[in-house]
Amino acid sequence: TSEWQIGGRTLTSRFFLGTAAYPSPQVLKDAIQASGAQVVTMGLRRQLAHGTEASDFFALIQATGSHLLPNTAGCHTAREAITLAHMARELFDTSWIKLEVVGDAHTLQPDPFELLTAATQLVKDGFEVFPYCMDDLVSCQRLLDAGCSVLMPWGAPIGSGQGLVNPGALRTLRARLPGVPLIVDAGIGSPADAVQAMELGLDAVLLNSAVAHAVDPVRMARAFKLGIASGRLAFEAGVMPRQDMAVASTPVAGHPILL
Amino acid sequence: TSEWQIGGRTLTSRFFLGTAAYPSPQVLKDAIQASGAQVVTMGLRRQLAHGTEASDFFALIQATGSHLLPNTAGCHTAREAITLAHMARELFDTSWIKLEVVGDAHTLQPDPFELLTAATQLVKDGFEVFPYCMDDLVSCQRLLDAGCSVLMPWGAPIGSGQGLVNPGALRTLRARLPGVPLIVDAGIGSPADAVQAMELGLDAVLLNSAVAHAVDPVRMARAFKLGIASGRLAFEAGVMPRQDMAVASTPVAGHPILL
Amino acid sequence: TSEWQIGGRTLTSRFFLGTAAYPSPQVLKDAIQASGAQVVTMGLRRQLAHGTEASDFFALIQATGSHLLPNTAGCHTAREAITLAHMARELFDTSWIKLEVVGDAHTLQPDPFELLTAATQLVKDGFEVFPYCMDDLVSCQRLLDAGCSVLMPWGAPIGSGQGLVNPGALRTLRARLPGVPLIVDAGIGSPADAVQAMELGLDAVLLNSAVAHAVDPVRMARAFKLGIASGRLAFEAGVMPRQDMAVASTPVAGHPILL
Amino acid sequence: TSEWQIGGRTLTSRFFLGTAAYPSPQVLKDAIQASGAQVVTMGLRRQLAHGTEASDFFALIQATGSHLLPNTAGCHTAREAITLAHMARELFDTSWIKLEVVGDAHTLQPDPFELLTAATQLVKDGFEVFPYCMDDLVSCQRLLDAGCSVLMPWGAPIGSGQGLVNPGALRTLRARLPGVPLIVDAGIGSPADAVQAMELGLDAVLLNSAVAHAVDPVRMARAFKLGIASGRLAFEAGVMPRQDMAVASTPVAGHPILL
Repeated sequence: TSEWQIGGRTLTSRFFLGTAAYPSPQVLKDAIQASGAQVVTMGLRRQLAHGTEASDFFALIQATGSHLLPNTAGCHTAREAITLAHMARELFDTSWIKLEVVGDAHTLQPDPFELLTAATQLVKDGFEVFPYCMDDLVSCQRLLDAGCSVLMPWGAPIGSGQGLVNPGALRTLRARLPGVPLIVDAGIGSPADAVQAMELGLDAVLLNSAVAHAVDPVRMARAFKLGIASGRLAFEAGVMPRQDMAVASTPVAGHPILL
Repeated sequence: TSEWQIGGRTLTSRFFLGTAAYPSPQVLKDAIQASGAQVVTMGLRRQLAHGTEASDFFALIQATGSHLLPNTAGCHTAREAITLAHMARELFDTSWIKLEVVGDAHTLQPDPFELLTAATQLVKDGFEVFPYCMDDLVSCQRLLDAGCSVLMPWGAPIGSGQGLVNPGALRTLRARLPGVPLIVDAGIGSPADAVQAMELGLDAVLLNSAVAHAVDPVRMARAFKLGIASGRLAFEAGVMPRQDMAVASTPVAGHPILL
Repeated sequence: TSEWQIGGRTLTSRFFLGTAAYPSPQVLKDAIQASGAQVVTMGLRRQLAHGTEASDFFALIQATGSHLLPNTAGCHTAREAITLAHMARELFDTSWIKLEVVGDAHTLQPDPFELLTAATQLVKDGFEVFPYCMDDLVSCQRLLDAGCSVLMPWGAPIGSGQGLVNPGALRTLRARLPGVPLIVDAGIGSPADAVQAMELGLDAVLLNSAVAHAVDPVRMARAFKLGIASGRLAFEAGVMPRQDMAVASTPVAGHPILL
Repeated sequence: TSEWQIGGRTLTSRFFLGTAAYPSPQVLKDAIQASGAQVVTMGLRRQLAHGTEASDFFALIQATGSHLLPNTAGCHTAREAITLAHMARELFDTSWIKLEVVGDAHTLQPDPFELLTAATQLVKDGFEVFPYCMDDLVSCQRLLDAGCSVLMPWGAPIGSGQGLVNPGALRTLRARLPGVPLIVDAGIGSPADAVQAMELGLDAVLLNSAVAHAVDPVRMARAFKLGIASGRLAFEAGVMPRQDMAVASTPVAGHPILL
């Protein structure tokens, strides 16, 4: 529970929580509180579709004391996302924006090209851009070059609960971008996945479905709270090296290999 | 932090900690306290080799308020282990014994045959036997038939930090032995491994090297404390089902398969 | 396609094929021929249940020119398996027996205890015992001590197609039992699994369901033939060492770990 | 060994081989022949650096009867790659170009942005572009939109031998781009990796280090030849579905989950 900084704020929690798809507003509220999250994200597009209910929803979130991180979920082009980001800034009086520009309706993966276009413009417009991005180093480097100061690489397709499908990619990001806050966003299925991400040295975890779709969302929020704190502590404490008990390391013809 | 029963005792912690290989007695003491462990294990054979220091060591553990679970680490035959278990009962006034009968000096895996022989005798002699055993259902069933009421299947070779090398085997044990306390013992490398074990529905985790060999053992003990609590909560809260985003499930000639 | 010896015979193929559950006798016959298998296994108990059809079945196998390896599938005790092995020797005039003593009706895993009892007796009775066994080193060592000269560790539960659930265990067997013929038996789902086993330095692969339950069993038999030859060649050719592109190897507090 | 079409040619082999880093020209020549590869790739930039030796090298490749696929390895910008591609067309009288635009000198991953720019131009210039690309669907779709008719997604970092670090991404490509030839390029370490790629339904495999860095490259080339044929046959034959032996599938609070 040590302090860290992101986007000009000082936080103690490293758990960012999404607010979609909960069984009821009360469960959402209880889950936020159980999670200890200090930042919650909300899809503006989805809320706007609900008209007057949106303000009720926002009020509910405000009542928990969390910072709001509006997101552009549902946008498929840079233009749409930029427009929505500006609306979010006016409505919620925050320059933070979680920038989602989805490139495929099925996997909901980011579109690296539209995302970069949108991020470039929004940085110029004075936003603190949190880009939901792919996990490849070059795409991430381009977003940094465009002025982003934080990255949100995916762990797996949104809502899949598959965990970290390519942990090596996240390790590479951590190793090559040592000073950049990295928040894994999307794909986390259970606390074990979140702990793995934190042990890799990522700075925080954002998730939604894994709590909202749990049988008991409030208890699961508490589980993630503990897990994320555990993974951070483990990273700081220095994990023991893994030992191979079986076989010599140099490959020689006719000798077994490591797999 | 709900209560559970094992071997006639009621515990709140699900973290069992080993006491070997710490940098100093003080670090050990601090690690036990940071871990919240209510049960710690100690190798009698190793302690006896240290003569008068052994009682100091025991006093240190007693001072933490933890229950002592003596173990027979280093024994290679049922006879050795039985003798050592009786000595432990006299010395420490406890009928609990973590029964280790190692079958291979390199991997330190249990010997299923000698283990069963020793367990059978020790149950008859009135011990509460905690057998360090393989993860296969038939070996485990035999130990239950011999009167054991708890099982300690390995996760991976002792000291390897490889985590759960065969999670399917542990799932099978959980599914087929629903009422039996299962404590994963050996192989855990980091909290992510412990969380995975707890999410599988195992009842507790015993580990030693992952804390003792961490760069900062005391902080790592705290990391495991949180992780084990997280995994238990997640199990109770009901993890969301994982979704495949890619491909139809029925295999058809000429169509991709799931891997 | 180099020669190797097992049980007193010289073979060129390293593919052992099971004969159960094919769509028709003709498909079985074609699959055996496509596989290039020189040894096929047949469950005596199942055949006996079919009365006169059994001899037709045996004739079909003989017509392919393959050696017959009778098996004791379906036996749950040493006694049953010993009796069946003796019947097999009389009926088929072979001292080879694939010894299966199943310890659990659900996973069909071997029973390490009954298996050892049966193997000990059958070796004394002059059989060439091919034990279907667990993948743990100690159980395997006991079977060798009992006089077995070949081992058939499982890859995964029979019929599951899960592949090698614990490749580290197989690597340990290969490393620690360098002169012993090791045939992975059960669990193989696709040629990728068989190639992995062969690259680990195992000597051969036995499978059944992966061919019999393929959409096109004959074509799948050919796929496995090529795959098994490929894996053996790769083992002999010396696989390149895998490189980590991401991160330093020594764990330090606050630095990412390898997973 | 059935026929397939790519880039206007009809091939029987699905194995594309790289020509760098062999112990000697003779070993390279023997490896190409053992591989059965009908297409080999050559880095023009590297060859140009060798002056007159380049034509000897090209002559060696021509003598094997393989088609040449020149590549732009070592280029870091679209401009460099476009220039080199035009040089390759003049020198080797082929419109085929394996387009590599590397975005990071350490992982050698493709730069999705420069790659798209270069591909767009080269398609306009009449090339048959084989882009070495990331494995994400959106980047791949953009290359198709730019007029590419084949894709070469990576399996893992070049030269790492890590195999398929994200098989789910490749499955998604196969499922969503059913008519597009997909050739996995980079990262393959052993035949098991290549078989896995082919079982996923990819159309072919390109590799270099796994053969060149094997202890016996020629034998390894033969191993890959068999493995790639095996994987294709398995894909066509329809792999059996994998079975879970352990646990019910629907997650319920307090019940174990699938991992």
